[in-house]
Amino acid sequence: MIYRYNYNNPLNTGAVVKNISYQQQGQDFFAQRTNDENTIFTRKMDKDDIVFGLGETLRGINKRGWRYESYCSDDALHHEGKSAIYGAHNFLIIKNENITSGIFIDFPGKIIFDIGSKNYCLMEITVFGKDFDLYLISGNNEQEVTTQFRTLIGKSYIPPLWAFGYQQSRWGYRNAEDVLKIADEFEQEGIPLDSIYLDIDYMQRYKNFTVDKEKFPDFQAFVRKMKERGIRLVPIIDAGVKIEEGYEVYEEGVKNNYFCKREDGSDFVAGVWPGKTHFPDFLNKKASKWFGNWYKTLIDQGIEGFWNDMNEPAIFYSEEGIEKALSNFDKIMQKPLDVTGYFALLDNFNQLSNNREDHKIFFHNIDGKLYPHNEVHNLYGFYMTKSASEAFEKISPNKRVLMFSRSSYIGMHRYGGIWTGDNCSWWSHILLGIQQMASLNMCGFLYSGTDIGGFGGDTSEDLMLRWLQFGIFTPLMRNHSAFNTREQEPFRFSLKNEMKNTIELRYSLIPFIYSTFIDAAINDKMYFKPLSFDFPQDKRAALVEDQLFIGDEIMIAPIYQQGAKGRYVYLPEDMVLVKFKSYGQRTYQRLKKGDSYISVELDEIPIFIRKNKAIPLIKPAKNTDQLDWANMEMLAYIEDGESYTFNLYKDDGYSKNYTSFIKIGLENHNDELTFTEKPNINISLTNI
Amino acid sequence: MIYRYNYNNPLNTGAVVKNISYQQQGQDFFAQRTNDENTIFTRKMDKDDIVFGLGETLRGINKRGWRYESYCSDDALHHEGKSAIYGAHNFLIIKNENITSGIFIDFPGKIIFDIGSKNYCLMEITVFGKDFDLYLISGNNEQEVTTQFRTLIGKSYIPPLWAFGYQQSRWGYRNAEDVLKIADEFEQEGIPLDSIYLDIDYMQRYKNFTVDKEKFPDFQAFVRKMKERGIRLVPIIDAGVKIEEGYEVYEEGVKNNYFCKREDGSDFVAGVWPGKTHFPDFLNKKASKWFGNWYKTLIDQGIEGFWNDMNEPAIFYSEEGIEKALSNFDKIMQKPLDVTGYFALLDNFNQLSNNREDHKIFFHNIDGKLYPHNEVHNLYGFYMTKSASEAFEKISPNKRVLMFSRSSYIGMHRYGGIWTGDNCSWWSHILLGIQQMASLNMCGFLYSGTDIGGFGGDTSEDLMLRWLQFGIFTPLMRNHSAFNTREQEPFRFSLKNEMKNTIELRYSLIPFIYSTFIDAAINDKMYFKPLSFDFPQDKRAALVEDQLFIGDEIMIAPIYQQGAKGRYVYLPEDMVLVKFKSYGQRTYQRLKKGDSYISVELDEIPIFIRKNKAIPLIKPAKNTDQLDWANMEMLAYIEDGESYTFNLYKDDGYSKNYTSFIKIGLENHNDELTFTEKPNINISLTNI
Repeated sequence: MIYRYNYNNPLNTGAVVKNISYQQQGQDFFAQRTNDENTIFTRKMDKDDIVFGLGETLRGINKRGWRYESYCSDDALHHEGKSAIYGAHNFLIIKNENITSGIFIDFPGKIIFDIGSKNYCLMEITVFGKDFDLYLISGNNEQEVTTQFRTLIGKSYIPPLWAFGYQQSRWGYRNAEDVLKIADEFEQEGIPLDSIYLDIDYMQRYKNFTVDKEKFPDFQAFVRKMKERGIRLVPIIDAGVKIEEGYEVYEEGVKNNYFCKREDGSDFVAGVWPGKTHFPDFLNKKASKWFGNWYKTLIDQGIEGFWNDMNEPAIFYSEEGIEKALSNFDKIMQKPLDVTGYFALLDNFNQLSNNREDHKIFFHNIDGKLYPHNEVHNLYGFYMTKSASEAFEKISPNKRVLMFSRSSYIGMHRYGGIWTGDNCSWWSHILLGIQQMASLNMCGFLYSGTDIGGFGGDTSEDLMLRWLQFGIFTPLMRNHSAFNTREQEPFRFSLKNEMKNTIELRYSLIPFIYSTFIDAAINDKMYFKPLSFDFPQDKRAALVEDQLFIGDEIMIAPIYQQGAKGRYVYLPEDMVLVKFKSYGQRTYQRLKKGDSYISVELDEIPIFIRKNKAIPLIKPAKNTDQLDWANMEMLAYIEDGESYTFNLYKDDGYSKNYTSFIKIGLENHNDELTFTEKPNINISLTNI
Repeated sequence: MIYRYNYNNPLNTGAVVKNISYQQQGQDFFAQRTNDENTIFTRKMDKDDIVFGLGETLRGINKRGWRYESYCSDDALHHEGKSAIYGAHNFLIIKNENITSGIFIDFPGKIIFDIGSKNYCLMEITVFGKDFDLYLISGNNEQEVTTQFRTLIGKSYIPPLWAFGYQQSRWGYRNAEDVLKIADEFEQEGIPLDSIYLDIDYMQRYKNFTVDKEKFPDFQAFVRKMKERGIRLVPIIDAGVKIEEGYEVYEEGVKNNYFCKREDGSDFVAGVWPGKTHFPDFLNKKASKWFGNWYKTLIDQGIEGFWNDMNEPAIFYSEEGIEKALSNFDKIMQKPLDVTGYFALLDNFNQLSNNREDHKIFFHNIDGKLYPHNEVHNLYGFYMTKSASEAFEKISPNKRVLMFSRSSYIGMHRYGGIWTGDNCSWWSHILLGIQQMASLNMCGFLYSGTDIGGFGGDTSEDLMLRWLQFGIFTPLMRNHSAFNTREQEPFRFSLKNEMKNTIELRYSLIPFIYSTFIDAAINDKMYFKPLSFDFPQDKRAALVEDQLFIGDEIMIAPIYQQGAKGRYVYLPEDMVLVKFKSYGQRTYQRLKKGDSYISVELDEIPIFIRKNKAIPLIKPAKNTDQLDWANMEMLAYIEDGESYTFNLYKDDGYSKNYTSFIKIGLENHNDELTFTEKPNINISLTNI
């Protein structure tokens, strides 16, 4: 059951699609109090309560033991001490021995969730405002609660099939020549590839919807030629619009009052990559429609996918901030410099970037009413992506466009995916990625992935390979890295053959991954699941932080520690461990329910097939267009007397007709595996 | 065997105490090449080679897979992306299937160790100079190599017994009143305590060897009164000497040319906590003797221990740096601010702190020869601590003084301990601490520990408890935190009883910890050992990154993950698991060699007693002075027909007569445990 509680006059954020009547009586799940500006909820937790949720944020699948801030933040150095990153997803599940409860606070401003950090047995939620909806969901277990929540917030976005291929990105591909060279090297090395990303350098002076003609003399022809090779180009779109006379986007925005404004009605100015910019007011319906339509200029040149970036929005500095810092600087320098002065000097400039005080001085116009940015901050990235997605509906109504965003709020999952933002080349960020995938799936963000290999910092060779080995399971599989870091395309490494084998395995898994994804999206299911979602009574399963189910058929347990040649796994049921060195080179091992240590050499990828389940495998190909779905292998662990039917979603890969699937039915009769339903494709069977 | 190879004209760093003749022929372990300034060693590694060593640095016990920089660095935010921290310990062990090799590069400048980061199977060591000694050690295994190395570098420092008690610190105890309040609270809560630390605030304007009379009106009496309560005060000494007319240390230093100088002969000026300071030239023998002698002023007031800090040395800014930054600032501001200008602005001030260019502009006078600081950088903290320690030898020749340092180089282990510097309240820093303890012990740094609970950032309640549960095993057990972070004395938490029980258990273990420590120090053994040091043939043991042996008797396996209620352990032999809720509340469980998952509730501390071993336990007391060593329990896991003798080191706890011990001999005869040697103390026996 979902119970909705009203707190004063909430803004309709668009998170929810199902209209639920307000409860007449107040909630009694939390103790609550208010002060001048905030609403504070508290609840005692039992010693063994587990708390799931919060989508993209930091730390474990079990959120207990830290203080999380829901306020979309551009913070690339998200180490363990941080509280907020790019997304803000206010959904929690409290798993108590007697009752499982879901909580969703539909509020677009800042919230702090202290989940047993101050006091281990206390949950304290501080909503920095008084106008919001609180949803309480009751269910028998975490899966039931999540399914209800997913029904509340609507169906997840589905990208085209090619977006399930391997994608190569780097901030540093400067021009057509660079991109071509990357494509050529992939081809020479025989490493599959479906797309190459264009980071900010493709634009003319970082102006959205422009292409630098010196770098890409004939962009449209270039896009076409690359597509003929099976490679889509995916350009970045940043939130800020450069202030430049003669630049059409800028001029239209100013003329029509489409930009966020200061209190005095002037357009707010923020320094970002292009220099001084204005921020489109995506929360203003007209502005949103206008901005979305601009994507057409690139679609018309053959582009089929985009990533929306810098949309927390990231602000390097505001004009007001610079002014203040310079006047402060003069004050500091009037005295002889001592240690206090020195620290003041550093702080003075370092606080310029993403200073939250700046969020109070610009405004959104929502249906004629002005809202200071800080009050609706968490919606900005969401509405930028909604703006694009609603435009795509008109530009190409029945064609899926790849779209994902850095910043997000619950509800955005209907319009696009996300990547987990600017991570680092750290082992701990592989683990974080595993944990984020689980939590994001609870909130409907199915199309997601990490920057494989790490965005910031220099990757090491084994880290890169191990990260790829996890990355082959994420719907969005993109290798991305920052300017001035070590180049990390797979062919840069002495372990490139191992990396090639890994990427090829991804392609072999695409029928499974794609089918599982579509099934999850159209049926409000999860693609990635923590173990306890299928085994809610299993107390050990609830504590597992580094293994995930994918769909109903497999479990993954990636290696995410430097130097590890194996790892422990907890199996809530009997499974078969398949260790792949490549698509064709594999070993099988039956494992009993319980704990095991498994050895996993640097070139091995473990996949666990669950009991009485089967998955399809196909031969790898150089890209998704070339995959041969007509020849398939079913890799099964079906015991004698048991059967399983896999639903294979196979479509044209780009139109919006998702619902048809092919049944592949298998049964084990006297230790012989046979079909109970066999489609008209060539399928070989391997039972383990 | 140890082989010593000469490279040109090395400085005698003092790392080594055993004179070994140079080999006549060059080494052929590494391929080597030189360029204008550097010497580069390379060696191919086998796929399964494991590399131990590098003392305090970052990452795992197995160092393979990252690039480490040996250059003492004041970096409190040492996340996974960093390469250098406070210590520089150039000792490595390569464990290959056929041969185990030790490497020590005795060089006081910068070295970069790329251990399979660029290329997984390549070790590349870049020595930023041409004058050094290279030692190569061959042995049958890692323990043999380490023992030889330890013999080469001399015996480890031993602190007084009280320094094995629980120690409370915080940057933020401002005055006698604050300190008293802390002491009172410990007493009221009945939590044991042996010392309280005085961070920089006790001094008069951060001047070394002064005490602020407003804050401590009668320091000597205060020190005495606290000691009567069983609490020693441990003041900080920073490297920099404040420039202030009339301040004796400053005036003597200037007059006698005891400070590091610029090229023009003037005293180098660095901004640190006291504002402008000079750096004592600890590498100058006279200056070292002079500075060391100043510790006497505090010893004369009753002080029995010190910590040397900021001795990398940390430099907030140099005069030259500030001047350059300000002129740069003017240049940046001449143009309208764009994004490039904005980043230049930030960098301009942020690069002031610990800028390595500053290390080139001040000099040390070593026996009349001038060395730019960067060439001898890694010796600075070492020689500061040596200066103090050599003075203690004269001030109180037969009394141990507590001394530990932040910065260090191999050789300093003879003069003092170290703590692992300014860490953070992160779970990953518990694990890092476990790993650092192993590597530090290889380099002779036995008296060491982490800032328990984390120095920077706000601790969470369970993190604090779990960290204490590891901290009870480190010889230096100090809870320390930074100004403006959450207060983390044990009595601040709702879990304070669990914390009290944990600290009490430390006191019960002191006879074991102290005996193991003294034995390790006087016999060149390790207090903490990675598992493979006792099981060099066990390939699984060599991969274990989160368990340690202490001495020969026990294994620890701390919990270091948020939310964990248990963990996996690998046992290279049968053991008994003792889970303590407190000294008295425990459960026993025999575990077989191999892998196990053990449940460990938040209030439980697991200790594994090895097969046919025994440890002493005593009743906890409010401090080390009060411990009753005359009533003891031997907790044993001795199988039928087997025996074990524990060497109990029991002395006055402060004099330098370490070598005497008492034998406690036990044997199991027909499943009855009896003494084979029994000293004249009351000992009860528990065999499990």
